[in-house]
Amino acid sequence: MNTAHLGLPVDVPSTALFTDRYELTMLQAALRAGTADRRSVFEVFTRRLPEGRRYGVVGGTGRVLDAVENFRFDSDVLDFLADQRIVDEPTLEWLAGYRFRGDIWGYPEGEVYFPGSPIMRVEGSFGEAVLLETVILSILNHDSAVAAAASRMSVAAGGRPLIEMGARRTHELSAVASARAAYVGGFASTSDLAAGFRYKIPTVGTSAHAFTLLHDSERDAFTAQVASLGSATTLLVDTFDVAEAVRTAVEVAGTELGAVRIDSGDLLLLAHRVRHQLDELGAKNTKIVVTSDLDEYAIASLAAAPVDAYGVGTQLVTGSGHPTCSMVYKLVARAESDAPGAPLRPVAKKSMGSKTSVGGRKWAARRLDADGMAEAEVVGSGPVPPGLADRQLLAELVREGEVVAREPLDAARDRHVAARAGLPMSATQLSRGEPVIPTEYAMG
Amino acid sequence: MNTAHLGLPVDVPSTALFTDRYELTMLQAALRAGTADRRSVFEVFTRRLPEGRRYGVVGGTGRVLDAVENFRFDSDVLDFLADQRIVDEPTLEWLAGYRFRGDIWGYPEGEVYFPGSPIMRVEGSFGEAVLLETVILSILNHDSAVAAAASRMSVAAGGRPLIEMGARRTHELSAVASARAAYVGGFASTSDLAAGFRYKIPTVGTSAHAFTLLHDSERDAFTAQVASLGSATTLLVDTFDVAEAVRTAVEVAGTELGAVRIDSGDLLLLAHRVRHQLDELGAKNTKIVVTSDLDEYAIASLAAAPVDAYGVGTQLVTGSGHPTCSMVYKLVARAESDAPGAPLRPVAKKSMGSKTSVGGRKWAARRLDADGMAEAEVVGSGPVPPGLADRQLLAELVREGEVVAREPLDAARDRHVAARAGLPMSATQLSRGEPVIPTEYAMG
Repeated sequence: MNTAHLGLPVDVPSTALFTDRYELTMLQAALRAGTADRRSVFEVFTRRLPEGRRYGVVGGTGRVLDAVENFRFDSDVLDFLADQRIVDEPTLEWLAGYRFRGDIWGYPEGEVYFPGSPIMRVEGSFGEAVLLETVILSILNHDSAVAAAASRMSVAAGGRPLIEMGARRTHELSAVASARAAYVGGFASTSDLAAGFRYKIPTVGTSAHAFTLLHDSERDAFTAQVASLGSATTLLVDTFDVAEAVRTAVEVAGTELGAVRIDSGDLLLLAHRVRHQLDELGAKNTKIVVTSDLDEYAIASLAAAPVDAYGVGTQLVTGSGHPTCSMVYKLVARAESDAPGAPLRPVAKKSMGSKTSVGGRKWAARRLDADGMAEAEVVGSGPVPPGLADRQLLAELVREGEVVAREPLDAARDRHVAARAGLPMSATQLSRGEPVIPTEYAMG
Repeated sequence: MNTAHLGLPVDVPSTALFTDRYELTMLQAALRAGTADRRSVFEVFTRRLPEGRRYGVVGGTGRVLDAVENFRFDSDVLDFLADQRIVDEPTLEWLAGYRFRGDIWGYPEGEVYFPGSPIMRVEGSFGEAVLLETVILSILNHDSAVAAAASRMSVAAGGRPLIEMGARRTHELSAVASARAAYVGGFASTSDLAAGFRYKIPTVGTSAHAFTLLHDSERDAFTAQVASLGSATTLLVDTFDVAEAVRTAVEVAGTELGAVRIDSGDLLLLAHRVRHQLDELGAKNTKIVVTSDLDEYAIASLAAAPVDAYGVGTQLVTGSGHPTCSMVYKLVARAESDAPGAPLRPVAKKSMGSKTSVGGRKWAARRLDADGMAEAEVVGSGPVPPGLADRQLLAELVREGEVVAREPLDAARDRHVAARAGLPMSATQLSRGEPVIPTEYAMG
């Protein structure tokens, strides 16, 4: 078992318990009924984007691959399932030998998606595929929510770098995944050391108000920081009086001071004042970093301000109002019978209320207009029309249980920039709107 | 090192990297300046409750104790910090010997809190206490958000049991902590096996729509489920036609069928219809479980419906609109000088905008009115007034680095019920309002 690639900053033996109990009871009942081996196709999709959002961003694909690879039932876990009588003896035996041996295709990480996009397709026996539902949805729903918020913030920031600093606002391991998803969505760095350790994301950070308050004066604090971290450091200037602090900062660090950080107050006003003051003091290259409760709208409102970098916490790790996506994992096709090689039959829950599904094993392609911009997300079953064959969106991720699509995180990050650039311009408007391209169904 | 009690379903060697980089750079600068040993008091508090909420619920205290105990820098971590030049050699040596040796007091888990409540107080040298900021805030901000949502839902549900089933809507380890916080807030069980494994929370679950769709008919599926899980199981009846499914369910399982679950449609209408149908079929003891996108308001709207249990997912794990709290970790006092035994001096960031802090090492007590109900959260420094001495809220959690306040999760769950019951009746109104008692300051 490969524990080294698990999406955690530490080795973890297994992801098998990140699972809802009903996956195991369904397995038990299907084993007994003789239906657990029926070839099945499950698809991950969402019926809608968060209200007002124009596109979604696939985040977490790489973490899903790690989770699938490490989804094994070791003796501690089996003992627990036995002690709690969660499943019966034949099921325990089946689980002891479990590893996923099926196929997974999906939108590669960083790609954009729309309502109905088959973001991931898991194919195997019912038993082996149903077990993965919970952990796959946990990862994609969480990471995609953060990646989407990051993408909007990165649009709002233009070329200015964004720093992820939300670790303190979310679960300590959610924080690590959030830093990763933010990087995919366009952030440049993170405050979270575990994310640096696990994913090699650049880490940043210098000091908080506590450091100033520890010392007998702001000057003492700045002197201590510069002595230790050098004049290229970032000094926090809003503990007492900002103008006074900026003056002291340049006196202590010299005009080569790296940056000042403003963490409260009217950022627009303060950024202009501080820039003016820094320039007057000769610190023309000293940058200004702002970090107070920013979201994509606040970032956009500072576009004309002399700000060099944004630090974003709460609103990033909580998906800027949408902390989860509504992705579901649905059985869309299964073998007609228990006979080996039986053909697949599309299946779907009957529509009731808004919980509609479209049955059948699907492909997806993004159709372009004459200018080469996306004009529709086409989702179909059966043969792919010739004109769409080279615009297909699903890539092979796992073949007969082996991960075949590992990639560096920068590949996902670059892919997102390219995918977003291929959307109509209105995709990146921050105002509320409909999905920027429609989803069309071409069911064979 | 004790890895067994870490708040994860698996052994993890250390929590030391769940930390913002600036904690370590501040440590380095303070070590060099000779100020790292100044005795310091940090307090966790929030300036406001989420908009409209009338009380907060402390969640995660037990997980904080685990995290503090496991906050050590092993060689992998030190190598990372050295390779990335995050801190210098003297700091690495200091970190290699690190363990927290200070004192922590706090509101015990399950207690309610209000703006300004000193939810946790960490006291030690600046260096040892500043390092814990990020992980303490991650845990308390996340777990308290879920516990607060759970508490409101549990009020709305009256005596009916609530099932936590949000794992698929949040990070896979956030899910485990969410199940734990939900239990503290009043939930009865969880779908999440990892939460059952790690925290002994009762787990539940039987089947999903995929199980019905796997089989050639709904009758086949129900027959398979009952054959394997017994007639006390819960059958999911909304895959096709609910009335048809309920009839089939009772035919297959008999009138001793445990429960039926409805996961879509107009739950109020369906619950009444299904109850009527079950009673007519003689299945008078068969329960009805509903599970479709519930929040506290939807739960309350079903109060008069014949519903026996609620399953709640998305809205629980996302804090029902407030996925994080705004708790901060602030230096409120520190030694006046580097001299051993130097007295503490209150410190605070100067007010700018809404980021106000109150300096000084604080106590807190809940003052009661003549009827014995809470009438104010009193937060003070200096001596505790005699009338409040036995109403103090902070309990000793860690003494000189040793955890002294471990308790079973049920203790926190029971404490929450008692604490909520001591608030004025308007505390449990679901409508938006102000904090149900005011916070008064009595600064010595």
